Amino acid sequence: MGEVMDQLTEQQRNEVERQIAIYTQGVQDIIPSEDLEMKVAKSILENKPLKIKLGLDPSAPDVHLGHTVVLNKLRQFQENGHVIQLIIGDFTGKIGDPTGKSAARKQLTTEEVEHNAKTYFEQFGKIVDMEKVELHYNSKWLSQLNFEDVINLAGKITVARLLERDDFDQRISTGKPISLHEFFYPLMQGYDSVMLECDIELGGTDQHFNILMGRHYQEKFGKEKQVAMLMLLLEGLDGVEKMSKSKKNYIGIDEAPQEMYGKAMSIPDSLMTKYFELVTDLTPEELEKFKADIGSGKMHPRDAKMFLAKTIVRMYHGEEAAKKAEQHFVTVFQQGTLPDDIPIVVWRGAEKISVIDLIVELKMLSSKSEARRMIANRGVKINGEKVEDTNWQVTIADDLIIQVGKRRFVKLQLV
Amino acid sequence: MGEVMDQLTEQQRNEVERQIAIYTQGVQDIIPSEDLEMKVAKSILENKPLKIKLGLDPSAPDVHLGHTVVLNKLRQFQENGHVIQLIIGDFTGKIGDPTGKSAARKQLTTEEVEHNAKTYFEQFGKIVDMEKVELHYNSKWLSQLNFEDVINLAGKITVARLLERDDFDQRISTGKPISLHEFFYPLMQGYDSVMLECDIELGGTDQHFNILMGRHYQEKFGKEKQVAMLMLLLEGLDGVEKMSKSKKNYIGIDEAPQEMYGKAMSIPDSLMTKYFELVTDLTPEELEKFKADIGSGKMHPRDAKMFLAKTIVRMYHGEEAAKKAEQHFVTVFQQGTLPDDIPIVVWRGAEKISVIDLIVELKMLSSKSEARRMIANRGVKINGEKVEDTNWQVTIADDLIIQVGKRRFVKLQLV
Repeated sequence: MGEVMDQLTEQQRNEVERQIAIYTQGVQDIIPSEDLEMKVAKSILENKPLKIKLGLDPSAPDVHLGHTVVLNKLRQFQENGHVIQLIIGDFTGKIGDPTGKSAARKQLTTEEVEHNAKTYFEQFGKIVDMEKVELHYNSKWLSQLNFEDVINLAGKITVARLLERDDFDQRISTGKPISLHEFFYPLMQGYDSVMLECDIELGGTDQHFNILMGRHYQEKFGKEKQVAMLMLLLEGLDGVEKMSKSKKNYIGIDEAPQEMYGKAMSIPDSLMTKYFELVTDLTPEELEKFKADIGSGKMHPRDAKMFLAKTIVRMYHGEEAAKKAEQHFVTVFQQGTLPDDIPIVVWRGAEKISVIDLIVELKMLSSKSEARRMIANRGVKINGEKVEDTNWQVTIADDLIIQVGKRRFVKLQLV
Repeated sequence: MGEVMDQLTEQQRNEVERQIAIYTQGVQDIIPSEDLEMKVAKSILENKPLKIKLGLDPSAPDVHLGHTVVLNKLRQFQENGHVIQLIIGDFTGKIGDPTGKSAARKQLTTEEVEHNAKTYFEQFGKIVDMEKVELHYNSKWLSQLNFEDVINLAGKITVARLLERDDFDQRISTGKPISLHEFFYPLMQGYDSVMLECDIELGGTDQHFNILMGRHYQEKFGKEKQVAMLMLLLEGLDGVEKMSKSKKNYIGIDEAPQEMYGKAMSIPDSLMTKYFELVTDLTPEELEKFKADIGSGKMHPRDAKMFLAKTIVRMYHGEEAAKKAEQHFVTVFQQGTLPDDIPIVVWRGAEKISVIDLIVELKMLSSKSEARRMIANRGVKINGEKVEDTNWQVTIADDLIIQVGKRRFVKLQLV
């Protein structure tokens, strides 16, 4: 490695450092990190882009913010002239689960694989420049392998090494069955890297083992070994579990601006910085400034989260939509924020009653004229909506919230 | 099974019993034994021969008595009208060992495989009728499998099941590596049984696991399950290790009659009955009589062993050759048996000397005329060979044995 660095001009060396600073941001682990530096240096010296691999499961094409962690990292490489290699694992998808036990891994037709891939790419286009991306379907080479090739592939790895993978290890020790074919999924992923001569493979920390298979097989096949770049896993809106569709704790990048903004505002405060780092397009400098402002108290956490929400909406729907989503949120939610301790009144009156009578009956104001004046001044809300009409007939319901002025609230409870 | 038996006439039922009595002789384990009875009964009822499988490793085609244990069993099936399926594992042979670690499993060319197979068959012809045997090369179907087929095959077995195989289990627990491709050899053996719809597979007890793979895969592929018939392993001439070429404790079935007879005479007494049972063509009745005669002392163990040796030679070289081998043995070895306490004489004389001078010099006789008379009476032997020529010039060597008359011996020792 030292050798490559020695051949660089000072300007080139600065460029290596600049790129490394960007690539390492928000990354959990780089294996081995000296190889990343060497690869970047070599690419600058030889003016040859690096090949950055991301493998995709063709069975679940809905893209949410959890996916964008790696996509944003890919974009950074792309912005610096490197080539993204997207690999659709269609060979696996077309096989399905031969044991028939996993409903999730049902066999996909060629049409389904292509449809799902198209769905992916439409969404990816919001983050990376899809025109510059290399697309690959791994069935192209994997379907060509015969039994002898497979034996040769299998001869280059030991059973003990495969049993080191956390989930295999766990299942062996708890007596849960592992079907032999499952051993082949990491092998395939490794072989993909051999075929495409990938320089770097991206994935979540849960892909640690599988991505190292790429290094293993590239070495066995006499290729330069790829670097494993493991991104932090993004917790979902619940703040606990990894963001995923099945856990319903996700923000889809195709969701409507208002929904996206609202969901973003429900992210736990403790995860705000992580979200900024992993799913926004802030520069390292902007990120540092933001962290400092939060730390010093110069920025209120609520304002920070609104900035996060607005940034996310802007990234996927543009500036204008982000502004509108924020306005909507302020109007509907923030200005109408309810206190935690609203007094509850058990309602034994009529099912329908005029808003004026309701306010007086609940003793929220002492006279009908006061109530009429308050409505005229737009100071009365039912369930967060401003009452405009003094003659409005309210339909009573359980949990109906009446607000008079800024501070007085009542919640109804039916007997 | 009961159903099949119920449909048989009494005569047919007797025939089932007769065959079962032959097939079970000398067998260590039949899994499951009720299936063997059912298969034989069905074959008699439907007048349809059973398919009896034996798998062969194409890399080591020298056939010794250890191999004949299964071959004799095959012959019994053949004599009762069933069909022998010999499977040359040429697919494995052509792959070799992809890790390159096992020198024994080097990659074979098509020509080598065919040559080795031919060598096998020439030798097998001494035991079974090769014209009635079905020959199969498993590359015919295994080389047709693609990666998807292999995944499907692998999906029908668990890792835990494979790790149950004794040698795998042992290597895992002692930390010795198992290369993943090794898991495929039992799978292939199992798949062969699927393709050929075998009824019974024969093998040594060391093939227990692999033969049960045939049952496993036949069931997974919706076929009738084969019966595993496990033969006792034959200890070699050392009386301890399994007979094998590498251990040099074997009797090859292509060896010359005299050599074969002599080696057979060196079988330990304790193994004689086992050899009679496993490697000769004695009928169950003859075997019983022989055991009784030995037990009652009616037959001397040495005579029994000579009968064994003669029987083995007769099986592979015919009656005439067997008789000659026995005569040779009696003449050279038995009548010329050397005493344990031959006096050793350190020889400081010439390197070449006439036999007459030698006898006198060693003081075995007192004069040249006595020596000449003794030679004329065929009473002098050098290294067990009778001296015919009184002018013979003996070349002196270490351990040279000179015998004069019945009792006088001298062994030379060079300085």
